[in-house]
Amino acid sequence: MRMRKKPWAANELADNPNILHDPSAYAYKMPEYFNNNQPIHLELGCGKGRFITKTAARYPEINHLAIERDATAMAVTARLSRGIEASLGLLILDATELPEYFLPGQIKRLYINFCDPWPRKKKWAKRRLTHVDFLEMYEKLEIPEIFFKTDNRILFEFSINQFSERGWIMKNISLDLHNSGMEDNIMTEYEEKFSPHGPIYRMETYKKL
Amino acid sequence: MRMRKKPWAANELADNPNILHDPSAYAYKMPEYFNNNQPIHLELGCGKGRFITKTAARYPEINHLAIERDATAMAVTARLSRGIEASLGLLILDATELPEYFLPGQIKRLYINFCDPWPRKKKWAKRRLTHVDFLEMYEKLEIPEIFFKTDNRILFEFSINQFSERGWIMKNISLDLHNSGMEDNIMTEYEEKFSPHGPIYRMETYKKL
Repeated sequence: MRMRKKPWAANELADNPNILHDPSAYAYKMPEYFNNNQPIHLELGCGKGRFITKTAARYPEINHLAIERDATAMAVTARLSRGIEASLGLLILDATELPEYFLPGQIKRLYINFCDPWPRKKKWAKRRLTHVDFLEMYEKLEIPEIFFKTDNRILFEFSINQFSERGWIMKNISLDLHNSGMEDNIMTEYEEKFSPHGPIYRMETYKKL
Repeated sequence: MRMRKKPWAANELADNPNILHDPSAYAYKMPEYFNNNQPIHLELGCGKGRFITKTAARYPEINHLAIERDATAMAVTARLSRGIEASLGLLILDATELPEYFLPGQIKRLYINFCDPWPRKKKWAKRRLTHVDFLEMYEKLEIPEIFFKTDNRILFEFSINQFSERGWIMKNISLDLHNSGMEDNIMTEYEEKFSPHGPIYRMETYKKL
């Protein structure tokens, strides 16, 4: 996402204890950042961070990481994250950089929430975070599960095709999440804003690696 | 489906040249019924038959079969089918009986349109035509592709899970068929009646067998 600049953003990023100011210091040894043996779950593109901060607060037995390439959005996330230092780390990174920071097996779950659907034209398809090229990257990183939400029907259709093509097993599919009775759903900012306008789609998908 | 009795149904069934009056005469040798080498596509539960008769008329290079366990519904199909004798056969059968009539490899495509979603309770799940037990049956019959439509969200969610679990590859998923730009869609009676009330879901799914 791209946001309007916020005057306080630079200070928040500089001061916030959850920000990994030098991610490369932890390249391939992210578990050392947490200094415990809890599994790592990572959100790709956390936006303003409501989902990952609420999730981290609810499940302290998991180490959560969030990456976001927009620094201003990450500053909003950072501000929300105060108070849950122990099990949450924030990195200003692009999804394509994951292999430069993680070894296979280090990430146990990926969250992809309301990622950019990109235009329908074929030439943009490769940029979608659920394109088979990305799935191949996740597989190389031996990420065994991905939880995916979107309000974009075309993107969700595309994603079922892509996951299916790579042999990921989809479970707990919901084609109208907010009318499905799921009780522990944590909404993103975007989700709260747009869910009155149409269904939210969600899936969990697994691969034995 | 179950329909009100129609007084003309028995006569239509008795007279209609598309009805296989003694299906067992063609058990395991259905290709002989058509007396040519065209591939066989079969609709499971054809209801009142608009889909299969229009499909058969549009694609005469394919041999079409339709099964339906309700005789009155099949009589309506039979009446619609007059004029397309050469490449269409109608059988009053239940889906569970397929293995008694077909050898592996004899059916090249299965159509499942708006099948009974059954109640949400687990004990009914096994009756859904997309339950893994049915998928296993289709696999034993070496049916390489299944085209599936429904207006029932819960059933479609369930079906994605089931196909995914058995390793079927889903393609051309549509979560709102009538707003997806698909041009060659042939509507069933049910689809025409219910599509104004909500989205129609559709998928094509393939398995290498």
